[in-house]
Amino acid sequence: MNLHDPRTPYLLLDRSVAEANIARLAARTAALGVTLRPHLKTTKSVDVARLILGDRPGPITVSTLAEAGAFAAAGFTDILYAVGISPAKVDDVLAIDARVTVLLDSVEQAEAVAGRVPALIEIDGDGHRGGLAPDDPTLERIAGITDVVGVLVHAGESYYARSVAELEAAAEHERAVAVAAAERLRRAGHACPVVSVGSTPTAHVARDLTGVTEVRAGNYVLFDLVMAGIGVCRVEDLAASVVVTVIGHRAERGWIMTDGGWMATSRDRGTARQPVDQGYGLVTALDGTAYPDLVMADASQEHGILAVRAGSGQPLPDLPVGARVRILPNHACATTAQHDGYHVRADPRATAIDGYWPRVRGW
Amino acid sequence: MNLHDPRTPYLLLDRSVAEANIARLAARTAALGVTLRPHLKTTKSVDVARLILGDRPGPITVSTLAEAGAFAAAGFTDILYAVGISPAKVDDVLAIDARVTVLLDSVEQAEAVAGRVPALIEIDGDGHRGGLAPDDPTLERIAGITDVVGVLVHAGESYYARSVAELEAAAEHERAVAVAAAERLRRAGHACPVVSVGSTPTAHVARDLTGVTEVRAGNYVLFDLVMAGIGVCRVEDLAASVVVTVIGHRAERGWIMTDGGWMATSRDRGTARQPVDQGYGLVTALDGTAYPDLVMADASQEHGILAVRAGSGQPLPDLPVGARVRILPNHACATTAQHDGYHVRADPRATAIDGYWPRVRGW
Repeated sequence: MNLHDPRTPYLLLDRSVAEANIARLAARTAALGVTLRPHLKTTKSVDVARLILGDRPGPITVSTLAEAGAFAAAGFTDILYAVGISPAKVDDVLAIDARVTVLLDSVEQAEAVAGRVPALIEIDGDGHRGGLAPDDPTLERIAGITDVVGVLVHAGESYYARSVAELEAAAEHERAVAVAAAERLRRAGHACPVVSVGSTPTAHVARDLTGVTEVRAGNYVLFDLVMAGIGVCRVEDLAASVVVTVIGHRAERGWIMTDGGWMATSRDRGTARQPVDQGYGLVTALDGTAYPDLVMADASQEHGILAVRAGSGQPLPDLPVGARVRILPNHACATTAQHDGYHVRADPRATAIDGYWPRVRGW
Repeated sequence: MNLHDPRTPYLLLDRSVAEANIARLAARTAALGVTLRPHLKTTKSVDVARLILGDRPGPITVSTLAEAGAFAAAGFTDILYAVGISPAKVDDVLAIDARVTVLLDSVEQAEAVAGRVPALIEIDGDGHRGGLAPDDPTLERIAGITDVVGVLVHAGESYYARSVAELEAAAEHERAVAVAAAERLRRAGHACPVVSVGSTPTAHVARDLTGVTEVRAGNYVLFDLVMAGIGVCRVEDLAASVVVTVIGHRAERGWIMTDGGWMATSRDRGTARQPVDQGYGLVTALDGTAYPDLVMADASQEHGILAVRAGSGQPLPDLPVGARVRILPNHACATTAQHDGYHVRADPRATAIDGYWPRVRGW
């Protein structure tokens, strides 16, 4: 099978690019003396998990119980379900054949899991979503109710950083918030063996992780234009793309029409908030060569509109009906979720597809 | 099974609401003397198709060959695949056990399908996506190359209308462009039996469809907040919603956290361009009662943040951990696509779930 065989739009993964991204963060976390607990919410693939972990049974992080169940069935035994636990899901957690640690930030949740499931307490470092404020005395109350094995912080706001200095500050803040919470628990008499931090941006810039035991990151395997926009990776490091076919032209508007719309890319417009707005994605040839300033400028459900970035002065490339191109995504987590699996090739020079890696779906 | 049984987040369909929406447009198109060719790209469900068509084998419209194949397998025989045909897909079209009509707007596409597949020519009425400009002489060239059974116009810009008067103008323009193109083809000696128009907004406001033979609409079965925002439906007419569970609170921020993030709602923020921005969706109780001005204000992958609309003065409702609420979507096509199927109840008063309707997925 080659790149022209699957029906478009389809999701393409460049294995060598993912492997290099995996090696890069593995080396960083090893040098920092922390365990990497990859977050599989981005790739949702047992094959990718094996690329990261080989035959080790973990540790891994997941975002749904569907992921937890699928990875447990594939032999992973140390799973962190890193979304605040809903009491109604506790029985489902117990039905999974693995050690599943859950996340919580309230007395109600602690009472629902008490004596049944190990838990981390989520601490909010930057106001991004859930978690206890760093000074909230609920921390000690929760640890008095149920088996708390540690604390977790996620620097969600780091995705909106504008400079490496901002990222470094976010990483140090994430570390400091986590370590301070762990120390509070220890002062209250709890061992708190786990101090878990992480986001793809902070994982790549942290200079010191003293006191941290594990780092979570998921996006880093694939990367995306948002990550390139904040300087965490280069555009060449993006491992996943959507292959689409040209189905028409609107020369008078400067448009090339494709059969890949937002159903194939998702509606994620993450770069709209960045200095360089990439539309629904940058366009490259199948071998990764960029068409200068060609972006997927707009999308209907099953139609993409490719156009040259306004003001760039670049010519519209000559792409006839039937030509296939790649769309590099704004947000790998969202774009890949629109597809049931990855067509895989060895590297960006390869024209052969040599694998299909299914994704976990649903909740 | 009742509303508290499925694991959240899940997609809920209120059958009586969908039936009323279906009856409304059926009555309109009957009164206007045109055939309704429902677009199943929104609901992607054989069960919904049966709700619309009973045991009739069509006509239907689809947006992917996966839909065409699934509906053909379910017994539908008259299928319009309404995305410009890619030459590489012609063999796949021929492999489907139904009469599949394709869409095209170029000589290259006409040559690829010539003598093999019936086609409609897409005419662009409003610059929304593909199609020939109304005065483009390619129209007659294409009809000289392959078997053209008619013309198709889609008033895609009607989704951005701001008043009923604008919508009525869009509907009349859509009709006039389609009829003019058909008349040109007839003057050139082609029978042009099909004159196809449609979008959910224009289908609901058109006052006269003289010369039109069929209307396409898909969103109308479910409706959504974008449609309510332009006045085509009421919020009570929304038939699909996402049920989520409260997993926490950030009282100091005025936030209620849920287990439904953008993976469950999609990233579609269609109402952001409307006078009333509904965030990621309006929040209601399971029975449809609205919480005044409560919206899903932000989203991570698997986290939703509910908050009262800024400046509304409404109190944050008391929703404890474990409570379930409904999120009404901005865009039914995008939100439903995040799910593999619908849990179905009889009507918004019902607490029992009495069906599961799977969706078609992929391409």
